[in-house]
Amino acid sequence: MALVVKKFGGSSVATTEKIMSVAKRILGEKKPDDKIVVVVSAMGDSTDNLIKLAEGIDEEPYKAGYSRELDMLLTTGEQVSIALLAMAFQKLGQPAISLTGGMVGMRTNSVHTKGRILGISPERVHEELDKGKVVVVAGFQGVDRFGDPVTLGRGGSDTSAVALAGALKADACEIYTDVDGVYSADPRIVKNAKKMREITYFEMLEMARLGAGVMQPRSVEMGQYFNMPIHVRSTFTDKPGTIIREDYTLEEKDFEIRGVAHDQKVAKIAVLAVSNTPGIAHKIFAALADANIDVDMIVQSIRNIDKNITDMVFTIALDDLPEAKKVVDKVAEEIDAGTVLVEEDVAKVSIVGAGMLGSPGIAARMFGALAHAGINIDIISTSEISVSCLIKGSQITEAVNAIHDEFFPDK
Amino acid sequence: MALVVKKFGGSSVATTEKIMSVAKRILGEKKPDDKIVVVVSAMGDSTDNLIKLAEGIDEEPYKAGYSRELDMLLTTGEQVSIALLAMAFQKLGQPAISLTGGMVGMRTNSVHTKGRILGISPERVHEELDKGKVVVVAGFQGVDRFGDPVTLGRGGSDTSAVALAGALKADACEIYTDVDGVYSADPRIVKNAKKMREITYFEMLEMARLGAGVMQPRSVEMGQYFNMPIHVRSTFTDKPGTIIREDYTLEEKDFEIRGVAHDQKVAKIAVLAVSNTPGIAHKIFAALADANIDVDMIVQSIRNIDKNITDMVFTIALDDLPEAKKVVDKVAEEIDAGTVLVEEDVAKVSIVGAGMLGSPGIAARMFGALAHAGINIDIISTSEISVSCLIKGSQITEAVNAIHDEFFPDK
Repeated sequence: MALVVKKFGGSSVATTEKIMSVAKRILGEKKPDDKIVVVVSAMGDSTDNLIKLAEGIDEEPYKAGYSRELDMLLTTGEQVSIALLAMAFQKLGQPAISLTGGMVGMRTNSVHTKGRILGISPERVHEELDKGKVVVVAGFQGVDRFGDPVTLGRGGSDTSAVALAGALKADACEIYTDVDGVYSADPRIVKNAKKMREITYFEMLEMARLGAGVMQPRSVEMGQYFNMPIHVRSTFTDKPGTIIREDYTLEEKDFEIRGVAHDQKVAKIAVLAVSNTPGIAHKIFAALADANIDVDMIVQSIRNIDKNITDMVFTIALDDLPEAKKVVDKVAEEIDAGTVLVEEDVAKVSIVGAGMLGSPGIAARMFGALAHAGINIDIISTSEISVSCLIKGSQITEAVNAIHDEFFPDK
Repeated sequence: MALVVKKFGGSSVATTEKIMSVAKRILGEKKPDDKIVVVVSAMGDSTDNLIKLAEGIDEEPYKAGYSRELDMLLTTGEQVSIALLAMAFQKLGQPAISLTGGMVGMRTNSVHTKGRILGISPERVHEELDKGKVVVVAGFQGVDRFGDPVTLGRGGSDTSAVALAGALKADACEIYTDVDGVYSADPRIVKNAKKMREITYFEMLEMARLGAGVMQPRSVEMGQYFNMPIHVRSTFTDKPGTIIREDYTLEEKDFEIRGVAHDQKVAKIAVLAVSNTPGIAHKIFAALADANIDVDMIVQSIRNIDKNITDMVFTIALDDLPEAKKVVDKVAEEIDAGTVLVEEDVAKVSIVGAGMLGSPGIAARMFGALAHAGINIDIISTSEISVSCLIKGSQITEAVNAIHDEFFPDK
C-alpha cells in the first residue's frame, strides 16, 4: 500500500476526453490498496477565458483593487476540473470525491493572486481515502483566515501538490508534465541533452532561478521544506522521469556540473557617467526595489578614475523593462548621471552544480567554451553553485550547446 | 437607511455589459446610507454549458451517483457572476465584495441538486455591509454540514434571496425578472390581464402550483416563513411591480377572484375497467409515489355498477409521462385492469382567490364561461381557494380569456 499524490496540469485535462484518459491511466497503475490523491489545474485555457471575462468589466483586471474578486473568479477553473475528474473516476467504477483548496485545509495568507501557503490540515483527505475513494483536489488555491479563496500564483498547482504530499506524509509525489523529466539543458535547443535520474532541491532551485522552466522554484522549496521527493515525469509515457530530492541515492555522481540553464527574458540597463560617491548605487537600486523590480547581475566599471566617474550596468527581467526604464531615468536625472542605455538583445547562460564548489577550473572551462565559439561575455556573476554569463541574445543557442558539449561530451 | 436584498436572474447578467448595467442601475437607485445585498444567478446559459461539459463524461450526469460532483460543478456558475458583479461595482467606485452560499452561512441538507435550506447565519454579510460594501451573493447554493456545496434546484436563486432577506431582517426583498409583476392571467395570452399591486403568499402559492410561472413556490413559502414581503418587478423599468405579502394593505379588494392560472404541461392517464375493490386505487397510486411521480387531479367513475367496475382517471406532469406510463402499465397487468389510455392534448385552467370561500356562485360562473365558449370540461377539482378544470389542450387560450373576461370585465 502506498499513498501517492499525482499532479496533472491544465493541458492534461483540457477536454473531457483527456480527463477520462487521466482517470484511466491512474486506475491502470493503481494497486488495489493504493491511496491516490490527484491534484489538477483548470482545464486548458479556461483560466485565460475567465480573465477575458474579467476584462469585459475592466481592461486591467489585475489592478490591485480587484485581486480578491479575481481569485473568486479564477478558483472556479479548478473547481470545474475536479468535479469532472471525480465524475470520470465514478464513471469507471472507482469511488471518488472532489475537494477544493479550502476543503483540504490549504490555509494561505491573504495576498490575493499571489498567495503563500501557511499550513495544511488535510483531515478530510485522510477520511475520504480511508473510505476507499480517490481524492481529487483543486490545485492553485487555498483559503485565507476569512474563508476567502486565494490563488497561489504561477506554478501554484505544483506547489499545492507538493505541499499536500508533505502534509499527508505521502510515499511519493508525482508531477505529470509535457516533458519527461529534468534535462542537463533545454532539450529543445540542445539535441544531446541528457535526462537526469535525480537532482537535489538545491540544484533544481538554482536551475529554476536561472531559467530552467520545468518546475517553479516555490514547489521545489516546498519539497525541500517537507523533505518530500518530487518525481517529475511525462503525462504521455510510463518511463521514469527525474526525482528531485535532498541528496543523491544513486552512484550517479560522475558529472562535473549538473546542467546548463539559460534565460532569454532578460534586459540590460546601463547608467553611464555616474558619480562614484557613497549612496549613489543605493539611490538607483532602492528606487527599483520600491517599484518591486528585481535586479539580477550588477557590474560597476570605472570610466574615469580621475573624475571619479563610473558606469553602472545591471540586468532585470525583460517584463520589468518599461517600468524600470521610467524609474531609472528619473533617478539618473536626480543624481545628474549621463545617458541611460537599454539593451534587449541579451541572454544569460549559466552552469549549475554543487560539484563546482572547490573546483575553480570549472568556470574557466565555461569561459573557454564560449570563447572558442566566438561568443563575447558581457557580465559574469557567480553563486556558490553556479556561474552565469550575460551574452548577446542572438547567440544563446550556440552558447548553450558549446558549454553543454564541454561538460557533457558525447561518448 | 434601508437594508434591501435584490435578486437578478441569469438573463440579467448574461454578459459583462449586462452585469455593468445591473451595477449601474442599483447604484442609481441607492441612497447614500442604504445597505444593499445583491443575489445573482449564473450568467445566461452558463449552467447549461457546465451540464454539457458533464455530459462529456457521462451522457446522464443527473444520475444519482454524480449529484455531489454536479453541485461542485454547477456552483461555479454563480461564483463567476458574483465575482464579475463585485468587480463592476468596484469599477464604478462602489466598494463591494462577493460571497458564496457557504460564506453567507446558507446551511442546507445534503440532498445534492435539490437541497433545502436548513438555516442561515449571515454574520459575514452584516460585517461587510457595516464596512460600506455592497454585498454580492451567489444564489442557488448553500453548503451542507460537511462543507460541501449543494444547489437548491429550480428557482433556487429566488429562494436564496428571500431566505437571506428574512435572515437579515431586510426592509425589502426585490426579485427582478423579465416580467414586471404578477398578473391576473398570463399577459402573453390574455391581452387585458391586469397587474396586481399586491397578492398574499397563500394565493401566490396556489397560482404557482396551478401553473403561474412568475415565482417558484418554495421562494414564496420562504417569504411566508419569514413574513418577508417579496417585491416582484421588472429588470427593464423602474415601475413598481407586485408585492407578495401576508395580507392586503390596500383597499384594493374589489375583486372576486385573484387570478386565472393555467398549465399546459399536464397529461392524463385513464386506467379503464378497474375492479372497484378496496386497495386497488392504493396499488396504482402507491406505485406512482414510489417512482416519485406526483398525481394531481383524480376521478373515479363507475362504468358498470353490476360488475362493480370503474374507470380511474388522473393527471400528472407531462414530463413524468413516459415513466408514469411504464409504472401504470405494470400495475394494470397485476390488477387485471383493462386498457391504459394516455392523453397529451389536455390543459388545466384554474381560478384562484381567497374570496371565493363561501361564495358558491363563483365556480358556477367559471363553468358557465367555459360552456359559453363551447369548451367541454373533462375533470374538475377544487381546493379551499381555487377551482380547476381539465380541458382540451388546444382550447386553453380561449378558455383562459373566457374566464378572465367573466371575472375581470373591461370597464
